Amino acid sequence: MDGDLVTIPARRGKAARVRAGQTVRVVNTHGDQVVDTWAFRADDMTEFMSMEHSRAHILKIIPVVGDTMLTNHRRPILTFVEDTSGGIHDTIIAACDCHRYKFLGVEGYHDNCTDNLHAGLAEIGLSSAETPSPLNLFMNIPVRPDRTLSFEAPVAPPGSHVALRAEMDLVIAFSACPQDILPINGVGHPPTEAHFRIDG
Amino acid sequence: MDGDLVTIPARRGKAARVRAGQTVRVVNTHGDQVVDTWAFRADDMTEFMSMEHSRAHILKIIPVVGDTMLTNHRRPILTFVEDTSGGIHDTIIAACDCHRYKFLGVEGYHDNCTDNLHAGLAEIGLSSAETPSPLNLFMNIPVRPDRTLSFEAPVAPPGSHVALRAEMDLVIAFSACPQDILPINGVGHPPTEAHFRIDG
Repeated sequence: MDGDLVTIPARRGKAARVRAGQTVRVVNTHGDQVVDTWAFRADDMTEFMSMEHSRAHILKIIPVVGDTMLTNHRRPILTFVEDTSGGIHDTIIAACDCHRYKFLGVEGYHDNCTDNLHAGLAEIGLSSAETPSPLNLFMNIPVRPDRTLSFEAPVAPPGSHVALRAEMDLVIAFSACPQDILPINGVGHPPTEAHFRIDG
Repeated sequence: MDGDLVTIPARRGKAARVRAGQTVRVVNTHGDQVVDTWAFRADDMTEFMSMEHSRAHILKIIPVVGDTMLTNHRRPILTFVEDTSGGIHDTIIAACDCHRYKFLGVEGYHDNCTDNLHAGLAEIGLSSAETPSPLNLFMNIPVRPDRTLSFEAPVAPPGSHVALRAEMDLVIAFSACPQDILPINGVGHPPTEAHFRIDG
């Protein structure tokens, strides 16, 4: 059964409960938009999807269809089952936060993915002591043979999506990344909304 | 002033307090040995060296001499000031843990870097709720142009070292990695001890 399309508002966070076996479709509605993604075990928020544990398991820095992400207890939590976005995502960069925007020269408050995670969880009555390193869907961080990396514009077209199957009952959280200092959400337009749908 | 050489026993952890401006020299005594390394702010253990925040700052997946690692609050914590090891380290793989060895087919308890971190901290009366993603000194995880990675033997010769300058008062913790299922600590010999010295 297909669920409703839920908006992740531009520059904001949103979280939802997902049952094992359901699929979460994350849509890059307008293209170019990075969606920071977290997943927590439903009955224990201290167990969560971990980039460093997942990379050791999938033996890649970017997951592809068929790959299963692990928790910090190395249990399967989300499997990539569809990807029409071009396959460029990021697992190595932290969520942006107030410190990042201060470093980039912003004065005063700037929306950020770290606060969005915690606000999204709070909206459904949950909290996490940690800010796990996120799965940055659609984010383009090329790693070169000389081991340098850079922040580039996404390649994901409007309407493209990733579908992730829940391998346990979990809480998923998203942030439509508000980064507008670096070109990580494309050039020539502000950060936009994105959408998700829980099917099954 | 040069400090005493401290042993990180084979397959075990060890932690120490370091003052801002002091230098920690980590010696690959017998060669080939991976040393998982963590650093925590001395007066607040919830602030710690973060691989995902550091990569966004140094714009590399492996730090080189001159690079400064950041905390999860994006403050400078450790700077690479010397490296005679060949420059191959890892920032993308989680510390090994009981779950990892179970997955690799080990029955019963196996020493692991996660438990070593917490035991090393406990030995000096400290604790951390989190197991941050470690700086895996001397660990050889090549990332290929197709984004795949693999676990390879270190290139660090016997007696080679890395020197890290403390940018704040901190607690440093090490684990001489006990991994003996994969060749990550070299081939043809068991995991060994390593040493460190705090100077200045």
